[in-house]
Amino acid sequence: MTKTPLTLLGLGAMGAALAEAWLAADHPLTVWNRTPARADPFAGRAAVAATAAEAVAANRLVVLCLLDEDSIAETLADVDLAGKDLVNLTTGTPARARARAEWARERGARFLDGGIMAVPPMIGVPGSGGYVFYSGSPDLFEEHGATLAVPAGARYVGEDAGFAALHDVALLSGMTGLFAGVVHAFALIREEEVRPTSFAPLLADWLTAMTPFVHGLAERLESGDHTTGVVSNLAMQSAANATLVATAEDQGVSTELLAPYFALEERHVAAGHGDEDGAGLVDRLRAG
Amino acid sequence: MTKTPLTLLGLGAMGAALAEAWLAADHPLTVWNRTPARADPFAGRAAVAATAAEAVAANRLVVLCLLDEDSIAETLADVDLAGKDLVNLTTGTPARARARAEWARERGARFLDGGIMAVPPMIGVPGSGGYVFYSGSPDLFEEHGATLAVPAGARYVGEDAGFAALHDVALLSGMTGLFAGVVHAFALIREEEVRPTSFAPLLADWLTAMTPFVHGLAERLESGDHTTGVVSNLAMQSAANATLVATAEDQGVSTELLAPYFALEERHVAAGHGDEDGAGLVDRLRAG
Repeated sequence: MTKTPLTLLGLGAMGAALAEAWLAADHPLTVWNRTPARADPFAGRAAVAATAAEAVAANRLVVLCLLDEDSIAETLADVDLAGKDLVNLTTGTPARARARAEWARERGARFLDGGIMAVPPMIGVPGSGGYVFYSGSPDLFEEHGATLAVPAGARYVGEDAGFAALHDVALLSGMTGLFAGVVHAFALIREEEVRPTSFAPLLADWLTAMTPFVHGLAERLESGDHTTGVVSNLAMQSAANATLVATAEDQGVSTELLAPYFALEERHVAAGHGDEDGAGLVDRLRAG
Repeated sequence: MTKTPLTLLGLGAMGAALAEAWLAADHPLTVWNRTPARADPFAGRAAVAATAAEAVAANRLVVLCLLDEDSIAETLADVDLAGKDLVNLTTGTPARARARAEWARERGARFLDGGIMAVPPMIGVPGSGGYVFYSGSPDLFEEHGATLAVPAGARYVGEDAGFAALHDVALLSGMTGLFAGVVHAFALIREEEVRPTSFAPLLADWLTAMTPFVHGLAERLESGDHTTGVVSNLAMQSAANATLVATAEDQGVSTELLAPYFALEERHVAAGHGDEDGAGLVDRLRAG
């Protein structure tokens, strides 16, 4: 069976990895990049278009993997998009994705926004754990989901075009907290006779064992009952914070990465919610 | 074979759980608690001592699970500890554990400090993932490690009595960052048509997939080469931070939990280290 042909605009590190994955799966591919030299490695394997308009004209399915939102407006300003299936993998906020969906609709194109949960080396590698969130036109996803799933797997998260970016940013935000905790943890042992590579498996196993607490937290957010099922409540956690702070100070480590979470816990406990856990903090973070 | 008899001082939630685990494993147990009523559930199953001195005199192996460091000094001030094997599970800093080890040595006791990586409901439950870090006297651990492993498994992390608390606090600090990231992530979706229980598995899977980055980070800390093996460097991460901040603002979520990490990244990138990853941030956090 002939594979769906598609166009890819943008051959940065991520775009090039996507191109390789579609080529490896025998999809006829048309590529374009602002700096033409980045298309050279694809000459003879993909059709290299001279202009963005030519690239877009070549196929119905058009994937954007450009530098940023401004690049999209600039690249596609005068390009005819009527009847196109536009898939935007350029990183942005949910609000920008929703605006882009409206912009595409006005130009007669169906639109999907995507959030890539992977770095380029994970693209085209089965079992890498990477994938792409998609949201927007359900018809577009139904028709092209299999093609879109080629580089790293595809997860459709709703008709609201902003939802892919929302999920993307939410997961990256969660990861940022994880990174901050890990940096603090390694800083604590840095001047001690503890080998980082001996400590790492203990830390990784502990974090992996603790991660499933998100399921209980989600249940409490959904039920609105923030106290049932709580194993370690904020009053208990808050009491332990003094030991964490004192240890950091003894070890010469700034508490700057964790202090705001301690402060948030303490505000919530002071407001009379010591019997809750992180579920209570979610709304506290919104309320200020 | 007769199981090693032991004494446990302190029957709070954790102490009571430990007592139940040792009793379930047929260890002869002597217990004492400041408030006598908390010992009532153990009458007939354990020997209930009238005083701390009587409890300590009953067995060579004595485990402390008291409220805090001050409680230890108060409880054991006038108690003869000569020839005892003292195991302290009371939460504290590495510095307090080292001071306590010296205090025990002066009184003629061998000493182990412990850090319990579990909440009471995980004690005595095989496969719960909980365990206890121990550090201090290697002879004491060799002799009593099997008994100490009964409630939740035991991991010996060195002769330095402060190391159990150091490992304990480091893992709890890493977990604090994880919690902060998760709270922020749920806050982002809170006002949207995204079910928390549908979002939770995506978040949990993503965090679990990202956690193994700690191994590469540890290798870079150990080698001193902070750039080799970096998949997503700080310059790339730092560029993405603007999207995370803008999304939080659009969603009405305070950036207070993540902002210090963004700022630390930006300081390190500005200092010319954009090609490093979190390994570089570990020393930056120490240097200020």
